[in-house]
Formats: sequence, structure tokens, C-alpha cells
Amino acid sequence: MEGITADELQLAHRNSALPLEALRWPITPVGLHYLLIHYDIPAVDPASWRLELGGCVERPLALSLDELQRRERLTMPVTMECAGNGRARMDPRPVSQPWLGEAIGTAAWTGTPLAPLLREAGPTDAAVDVVFTGLDRGVEGGVPQAYERSLTLDEALGSDALLAWGIGDGVPLPPQHGFPLRLVVPGWYGMTNVKWLHRITVADRPFEGYQQARGYRMRTSEDDPGTPVTRMVPRALMQPPGVPDFMTRRRFVDVGPCLLQGRAWSGHGPIARVEVSTDGGATWADAELGDAPGPHAWRAWSYRWDAASAGEHELLCRATDAAGNVQPLEEAWNVGGYANNAVQRVPVTVEA
Amino acid sequence: MEGITADELQLAHRNSALPLEALRWPITPVGLHYLLIHYDIPAVDPASWRLELGGCVERPLALSLDELQRRERLTMPVTMECAGNGRARMDPRPVSQPWLGEAIGTAAWTGTPLAPLLREAGPTDAAVDVVFTGLDRGVEGGVPQAYERSLTLDEALGSDALLAWGIGDGVPLPPQHGFPLRLVVPGWYGMTNVKWLHRITVADRPFEGYQQARGYRMRTSEDDPGTPVTRMVPRALMQPPGVPDFMTRRRFVDVGPCLLQGRAWSGHGPIARVEVSTDGGATWADAELGDAPGPHAWRAWSYRWDAASAGEHELLCRATDAAGNVQPLEEAWNVGGYANNAVQRVPVTVEA
Repeated sequence: MEGITADELQLAHRNSALPLEALRWPITPVGLHYLLIHYDIPAVDPASWRLELGGCVERPLALSLDELQRRERLTMPVTMECAGNGRARMDPRPVSQPWLGEAIGTAAWTGTPLAPLLREAGPTDAAVDVVFTGLDRGVEGGVPQAYERSLTLDEALGSDALLAWGIGDGVPLPPQHGFPLRLVVPGWYGMTNVKWLHRITVADRPFEGYQQARGYRMRTSEDDPGTPVTRMVPRALMQPPGVPDFMTRRRFVDVGPCLLQGRAWSGHGPIARVEVSTDGGATWADAELGDAPGPHAWRAWSYRWDAASAGEHELLCRATDAAGNVQPLEEAWNVGGYANNAVQRVPVTVEA
Repeated sequence: MEGITADELQLAHRNSALPLEALRWPITPVGLHYLLIHYDIPAVDPASWRLELGGCVERPLALSLDELQRRERLTMPVTMECAGNGRARMDPRPVSQPWLGEAIGTAAWTGTPLAPLLREAGPTDAAVDVVFTGLDRGVEGGVPQAYERSLTLDEALGSDALLAWGIGDGVPLPPQHGFPLRLVVPGWYGMTNVKWLHRITVADRPFEGYQQARGYRMRTSEDDPGTPVTRMVPRALMQPPGVPDFMTRRRFVDVGPCLLQGRAWSGHGPIARVEVSTDGGATWADAELGDAPGPHAWRAWSYRWDAASAGEHELLCRATDAAGNVQPLEEAWNVGGYANNAVQRVPVTVEA
């Protein structure tokens, strides 16, 4: 990885990664969850804000925050990952937000389920897609736009999607997480979870907006129309052991027993297995699986490493989900730099 | 600025800058304040944690969080900036956390004043320095260490320094801001405000720890012992107008009146003047000064720009403090890349 550009650095500062030691918390503290903000955080007056639900529906709705908060309420821990996580480790490096591998977090989102609201509005027979529009505006790929993403009607009605107005125990959403309302679709990459949501449009044809038709597609070349990026592929991350060097983040560990811990998740099913290698991938052993804060959230894992020999070591971890998906050892390149779940490698110096 | 290294990118992701649109809030929402975490955020059990105050004192103290919270309590809005803010714009670029210019934030810290507690412990006649030790540990410049910084006894007793256990209206400190206790010294750069504080040692000689004697010094060459980095030099920042391009963050503004807004601060006194240039620095005009959330916090400013002509523009802003310090137009280089308060430049495309 060489020659990061000033534009990439600027994005790396604007957006936030999870500091890996924050894997210690099953629910990520506010301020440590990853953040990808395409344009600017918009200023929203909650008093005049309304969620409009229209298009191919029998009964268009306009709901205040208060009205949304009086509906059925639930709190759901959800692990969310940016689709571009790991992008900067691809070679050649797709130039965009240059995530290394920490674009992850788990929040307990509080809100009201999407499906009953959609049913209440009554999609007509013409309904095909459901488009979610945020208040954030900007230019991307030369196209002025508000941030918009869609789900098919079946996905919108069949998922556990939540219209979230709070985080944790009903605390209002922080501005950076979409105040006053965001979409949360468990298992899908972050781009689906539209922030600063103010309009839901039921459409009679597939949505062709920038973020659906041009962005967030798995493409093998610039000419390839590609396939949509959807659910998170499995990934395990390790809380790096010992203490870091400030500049390189290399870890220093004392000789002796060392408990390795981390979390693993997948959008394709529960985590079935986590393996650890302490010799750079030559041999692997099963980690012990722990709890998840909820069915849509990451699962804890741990492994007792006997750091018996002083010197340089490389630690790896690898997740397998219940659908049989396994993390690869090497990056699989694509134009946009999406869904890179190659295993994490943690260089460690063991000191006598 | 070319060839940012992988180590620098890693630090840029770990640490967090203020997204400039967040200048709109007089008190920065939790999760948007800048963060510089030298090592790892430590795990702290508040039940067993104590603040120890010892060394050259008549009456050593060990205080629980509960005991600290029962002492005199005040809430103080403080603007805090990383001493390395702007480092990455220096040429040649000092290689460390590569801040561009957004390592800033304002929080309303809640806690108990430091000076009465120090007086209660009773510094002896031998007392010279007061050393603040955090629970965060790592290696820096080859030196294993806990993060430690000092003030002279006079600075510690004479400043408005706060031992902060909360943020906003008495909410416990978030882990990333130093839970359960941090030092807050108004007007000083961030490195002074030791997080995860657990020991205060009154010493009979000047503190020679790494962060005092090697780090955080203004040095003209590697051989220069340099002078200490202390208080923040003045800086104004602008909330970039219009909407951004995703990748370049270039701004697009419609032809017509455009209100420019921002905030300015200095650790050497109140802000006396903010000037704006809309022609790349050829001419300057005074901005209107607004309120500050407190005497130790940034002051709002605004300027009505008539964006009359379509095309490319460069906007600048420049602060002057009551002590007469003015921001320079160009970077002043030093080895560590500290205290670079060269004016911000915001490229804007005005569109008809």
C-alpha cells in the first residue's frame, strides 16, 4: 500500500473507524462506531421534519417524529459494516474512502419496524421497489444527488428492517448516525441503512439511482455492469493483544499465556466457527465461541495463546458462517473495492 | 502532500477529526469531537479505580469516583485542539498522526476543580512540578511508557484546570474521552489534558518524561532541544458552504448570497477579530463576531458573501486574538509538526 493521496487522507479523517480495542464492548460506545458520511451531516429541525411515505401506495403518510415514537417500539442490536471495509488493502487500490479493516460497529438501535408501516400505506399491485431518501446532498461521480438506496418490496416487507429514531435505551440518534431517523436493515452492508431519512417512495420499477446502479456494485472491470452489493460476508476481528507502538501500532506482548479475543459476524447467517493461527497461517485452531448481543449482531470469540517464544509472530483469525462461507486468506479485487473480507493479520513482538 | 504512508493512514483512521459541518454546533455532539488516542483506550473498572495524589504533599489522597463527584462541581465549555493539528500540510511532512486541520472540538466538561484538591493535599516546600499519569500504556520513540504530562505547580494552582468525570450535563465520560476521569486545562493543546487519569504526583524537580522532554516540543532540527508546546495559537475554521463532492470534498455553491459561518479560538486570550477573504487572500474583510459558549471556548463568526460570479473561488478565514497573535498565511515548519495555524483554504465552485 503506497502513495495514499491527499483526497484519500481527507476522507480517512472525515470518516471514522472502530479503534480495535473497542471490540471489547458487545455494544459499541457512542463515538466509537464506524462512520461513513457520503456528503455532509445535514442540519435537521425535528419539529418541522416529517417522514413522507408515498408513491405506489393506497394511503400516503406523513409522520412526525412523535407519531413514529408512539408506534410499536423495539430495540435491536445490529452489527453494521461499511461495504468498502478493507478496500485500501486491495492491489491496485481502488481510490475512495481507504478503509483498512475497521469500518465496523454494533449499536442497539431503537425504533419501529418498517414492514407494518409499509403495509399500512398499502403498496399497490404496481409496487416493485422501495426507495429511501436521505436529507444529505452532494455530488458523486459527477452526479448531484441526495443519498438514496432501495430495497425490493419483498426485501422491505420480509426483512427485520427498522426505522430507528434512537440508540441504546431510546436516546435520540446522534447527528452523525442519522438524526432524527434512519433505516436499519440487519445483515446488509452500511450503504443500505439510509441516514437522515425523510422520504420512502414505493416505485413501480427498479430504482436506477446512482448508489444503486453505479455505486455499490461488484464489478470486475469498468465496463462490467456488475452485481449489487447486498449482505455482509463473514469476518472475524481480533482485539490486538499487548500494548502498541504509537506510530506503527505494532504490538508488544510478554512471554506467557495470552488470551486472544475478538468478535465475528456475517450477514448470511450466524457465525459457526472462528479459527485462529498464531504462526502466520501455517496452522489453525478453533477459537471458543461466546455470546452475541442479539441475532443480528457479532459473536464473541476467544483463544488461549501460549506466547512461549520471544520474537516476531503473526496472528490471524478467520470466521465461517452457518451458510458455509469462509473468509479467504487473500483479497479478491473488484473495481469499487467492496466486500473485502480477507483475514486480519496482527504482527506481534513477544518479549521475554 | 504526497505519498502518505500506510502507518499514517492507519493513524488517520484510528484517530478522529471534526467533520467541518459540525462547526455548526457550539458544543460538539459526542462522537464528533476530535480524538487522539496515543496507545489503546484502557478498560477501567470504576468500582476499584482510585485517583491517587501523592509525592511532595503533606496529606496523600486516594479518592474514589464517588468521592470526586461529591466535591465542588462545575461544568465548563472548553475548546480543545490537538497540538499536531495541520501537521500533514507542512513540507516536508513530519511523519506522525497526519492531521489536516480538523483536530478540534468543544465539550462541556463536568468535574471538580484541580487547585482546591491540590491545596488540600498540601504541596511541600520542595514541590516544583505536578505530574499527571494516565492508565494508557504503549511504546513511543522506543520508550515503553504510560502517558504522562506535567504542569508546574504554579500552572496547576493558577489555571482553571478541571478534573472532569463527565461531559454535557453530568453524563459519565465516554471511554474515548478518558473514563472515568481526565484532566482538562483550558487554553492548552490537547496533550496536556491527560485521559484515564489515575495518579497525580507532586515532584521536587522538573518532569523529564517522554511526552514532556522529547515529544511536544517546538524544535527547528533534530538536535535542537526546543521549547515546550503549551497554549493554542489562534485559529479560525469555516463550515464549508454549499454541498461537497464525495471524493474531493470540493464545494459547489449556487450563485447568489451565501452566508459563511465558522468558529475561532485561541489559548492566549479571547478572539478579537476574524477576517474573511473570498478571492484567495488578495483582499480581506471583517467577519461579524458572535457568541462563545464560555470564556474558554470558541467564538462564532459569520460573513455575508455575495457569490455573484460563477467559477472557481478560494475562501480563507483568519483569526486574531486579544493578545495580538494573528494566523499566518503560510505554514511555519518544525520537526514535530506542532502548532501549525496557517489559514484554512476552502476551494469552492460557484454555479449559475
